Amino acid sequence: MEPLPFVASSRLVDHHCHGVLGTDLDREGFEAALTEASAVSPLGTSLFDSSLGLAVRRRCAPLLDLDPMAPADEYVARRRSLGAAEVNRVFLAAAGIEVFLVDGGLWPEGLTAPSAHVGARELGVLRLEGLAEEVAPGGAAGFPARVREALASTTAVAAKSIAAYRVGLDLAPGRPSDASVVAAVDRWLGGGSPRCADEVVSRFLVWEALERGLPVQFHVGYGDADLALHRCDPLLLTDLLRATAPLGVPVLLLHNYPYHRHAGYLAQVFPHVFADVGLATHAVAHQAGRVLAEALEVVPFGKFLFSTDAYALAELYYLGALFFRRALSEFLVGGMGEDAFGEADAERIAHLIGWENAHRVYQLE
Amino acid sequence: MEPLPFVASSRLVDHHCHGVLGTDLDREGFEAALTEASAVSPLGTSLFDSSLGLAVRRRCAPLLDLDPMAPADEYVARRRSLGAAEVNRVFLAAAGIEVFLVDGGLWPEGLTAPSAHVGARELGVLRLEGLAEEVAPGGAAGFPARVREALASTTAVAAKSIAAYRVGLDLAPGRPSDASVVAAVDRWLGGGSPRCADEVVSRFLVWEALERGLPVQFHVGYGDADLALHRCDPLLLTDLLRATAPLGVPVLLLHNYPYHRHAGYLAQVFPHVFADVGLATHAVAHQAGRVLAEALEVVPFGKFLFSTDAYALAELYYLGALFFRRALSEFLVGGMGEDAFGEADAERIAHLIGWENAHRVYQLE
Amino acid sequence: MEPLPFVASSRLVDHHCHGVLGTDLDREGFEAALTEASAVSPLGTSLFDSSLGLAVRRRCAPLLDLDPMAPADEYVARRRSLGAAEVNRVFLAAAGIEVFLVDGGLWPEGLTAPSAHVGARELGVLRLEGLAEEVAPGGAAGFPARVREALASTTAVAAKSIAAYRVGLDLAPGRPSDASVVAAVDRWLGGGSPRCADEVVSRFLVWEALERGLPVQFHVGYGDADLALHRCDPLLLTDLLRATAPLGVPVLLLHNYPYHRHAGYLAQVFPHVFADVGLATHAVAHQAGRVLAEALEVVPFGKFLFSTDAYALAELYYLGALFFRRALSEFLVGGMGEDAFGEADAERIAHLIGWENAHRVYQLE
Repeated sequence: MEPLPFVASSRLVDHHCHGVLGTDLDREGFEAALTEASAVSPLGTSLFDSSLGLAVRRRCAPLLDLDPMAPADEYVARRRSLGAAEVNRVFLAAAGIEVFLVDGGLWPEGLTAPSAHVGARELGVLRLEGLAEEVAPGGAAGFPARVREALASTTAVAAKSIAAYRVGLDLAPGRPSDASVVAAVDRWLGGGSPRCADEVVSRFLVWEALERGLPVQFHVGYGDADLALHRCDPLLLTDLLRATAPLGVPVLLLHNYPYHRHAGYLAQVFPHVFADVGLATHAVAHQAGRVLAEALEVVPFGKFLFSTDAYALAELYYLGALFFRRALSEFLVGGMGEDAFGEADAERIAHLIGWENAHRVYQLE
Repeated sequence: MEPLPFVASSRLVDHHCHGVLGTDLDREGFEAALTEASAVSPLGTSLFDSSLGLAVRRRCAPLLDLDPMAPADEYVARRRSLGAAEVNRVFLAAAGIEVFLVDGGLWPEGLTAPSAHVGARELGVLRLEGLAEEVAPGGAAGFPARVREALASTTAVAAKSIAAYRVGLDLAPGRPSDASVVAAVDRWLGGGSPRCADEVVSRFLVWEALERGLPVQFHVGYGDADLALHRCDPLLLTDLLRATAPLGVPVLLLHNYPYHRHAGYLAQVFPHVFADVGLATHAVAHQAGRVLAEALEVVPFGKFLFSTDAYALAELYYLGALFFRRALSEFLVGGMGEDAFGEADAERIAHLIGWENAHRVYQLE
Repeated sequence: MEPLPFVASSRLVDHHCHGVLGTDLDREGFEAALTEASAVSPLGTSLFDSSLGLAVRRRCAPLLDLDPMAPADEYVARRRSLGAAEVNRVFLAAAGIEVFLVDGGLWPEGLTAPSAHVGARELGVLRLEGLAEEVAPGGAAGFPARVREALASTTAVAAKSIAAYRVGLDLAPGRPSDASVVAAVDRWLGGGSPRCADEVVSRFLVWEALERGLPVQFHVGYGDADLALHRCDPLLLTDLLRATAPLGVPVLLLHNYPYHRHAGYLAQVFPHVFADVGLATHAVAHQAGRVLAEALEVVPFGKFLFSTDAYALAELYYLGALFFRRALSEFLVGGMGEDAFGEADAERIAHLIGWENAHRVYQLE
């Protein structure tokens, strides 16, 4: 549905996104960026035959002065003729996001900062496994100290764990001793891979960040073919969440689809846990209303945030914000229609989710 | 939606609830009772910023002669000025429940029987782990006999297992031998904790109750931060359900959210299994229609029941019944709108779920 | 909702169904065929008290010249008086399915081919565990060769694995060596059961079929009380799907309820994976719109198919097709109402799902 006026104009913090591609794409490259698959399948059809692909043609085409539902080839051609800089400016401006928290961990050549294209505040998120991979080559013995040093001097407002991708979310609850971390890094370096994929190390990083007061974001649920989705159910974090609750430092469960109800439950019962449905919002596109409503069933409205998880395509910042505003409006209009609350409370809920919760969690301003 | 007339006036058995608090609450105490968290988080906002909190202000305030959506402080103040006895009378009367099956197992000082506040029939549910904790101190050797004695003389119409909270629902299927139970109780007593948290003991209790013809209710799914939700998926009971089916004694899966579809499946394929969505009904409040509809997808209507799982706050009996009636009406109006069935069948479905199934399961009257 | 005209008349390939009963049924037999339970429970009520039962009375009765919502006894009596041949002809004609892919593996006496009752094309699906059970008695040593021979000479257009029923879906990824298969068959034959329930054998069968270019259908999710539903989550196949992706041969995830979102994710991220919601479509009947919409959230429309999974009752082919058409129409009307796409794209989506994807996957024509 069309966004409610006060939702259309609401201020937004995108508390988790990535960089935007500064270079042009051909059709294959563009389609590949529309899916979590590693490539477009010859057995399927075009990725434009998906909710997200249709949304690009319907919602993005008019911003490039094309007709709504312009054919895919025409869309990609127009995009190239305008050039990446202009395309990025158009969609990031249209997204209407005022603050970006940008994950610095996945940054192939060609990515640029979202704020480089539009007047917006940008803050950093430190990828924990990336930090580990940076300091590990210095040797296992000094690993814990080097991690602490880096965390002590970071300007990032949050850390992010991709344990989901590396070892799954079934992390043990306890804080690992330095000795066990050194032993783990030793094994890792002995294995010859530069990739941090060790449960003890991932857990150590999370504890270190939280103990330094740095909120920790976890990749949860939906992602690309590299992960095993059933090992990314946020409920697998239950013991760790129980163990870290006394620290009183926020833990943010990102994406969560299709486990978004599980995340809502955790955000209700653990005082320091928060959730969002980023990535899913633009992936399911016009169906985001149902997914958001499910996510909001049991979570207190003070514990839910907005994010796009946009990566590479400027369209995704725009569509993430657009479908969030539409989905939230659907939730609020539904609630008002049921006479569950009035407009004052609807406005308050929108402001909490889009703006205020992120400010409280990350101590912005 | 507003309840259909025949649903608004339908007779209800609440086949699983708890006691209601006989004393007054301040705002913090009231908020704490609105959530499954152990306390209100300083990192979130008020629990009134939740679907349930809004429902209290919208639906309960007018029954205390306040405006709909009265501010939270005003609501709590009014509640205190009226006093718990009057508040309990008002909401229990408005709930319109005729029969309460009350879990006697969680009964801190200050709780009172729901039927003490309103003319209603009340029947007992025996908490199995509570029984075990009562008779275990008498020694391991006589434990099985003492359990049997207690079950033989109980006036309860059902037993309840909280294995979900103590050991998770991944129970082995077989009936444990007395010797294995004695050994388990021996270990338990040797461990020094008064708390029954042993898989063999929980399983023994379930088998004993069923063999005596006592229907067994299981806590499933949604609950407080004490449990690990992914170990409370009702599907983990599959082997035990298959093993106990030949006894022909009902097993009731309680709450089930967010695994309510799983529970519906079990209730379809196992002859003795029944399900509900208590607790979730008031927790998700105006969104209960979707949750109930999902729960009713594959379950035969002769296998689904109504419960509130209300605890402590009189508001929860009222809201549990209210949102059940609204959600059921939404399901029925939707079905009639789709021309899936007419009013006669809609009335029959409502009567089965609200009244008749409970009478058949618990042999009431 | 009433189907859109272009969906009502759309051509359909039912890419997974079973045989239809050629003999008459009494009420008990008819009810038993309406549920995945092994029998009608004396503790519940009639199976006509279910979404599917109501759909039979509402949608099927008029095709037998009864009033909509005719009582169950009247329906069963009318069915008997017409005779199975006429009943089968009526419902299979009304289903409007042009191509049936029929699983030949579950074929008790009395079953007949769907195409025997109506002008339709019929193609075979080879049940892999059935094949194993046929050739195993010849001895373990020659088992791999006999399986290869059978697969090389089959006229089936696909194979089907019921590993879900026999060992669960948590299959190891690797291609088993012939030696390990021979050892496994040796153990199996030594055990004395004719039933193939060995992980190595099931996995071998899948690899053999795929390497011969035969698409493999997997039973996933919802089924009868024989299975353990939580061991039928399609995500358990993740490692095997990753390992088989390079073969480029389609893998079809059947049914999937209540894990249909999981299946959609797999179909998005793995190039050779496809999904459907057969069986659930008629089981949830008038509620199929929600289930289908959830299934279509992240799956590309080139990766989703239609099936009924109908078995025994001719009504189920008809209801499977009817509720698919209604549910798909609901999805498309909803999308057009949200202005997510127009009629041209809606028609294209319907054609992909109902017809074109099956043709590409199974290389029909």
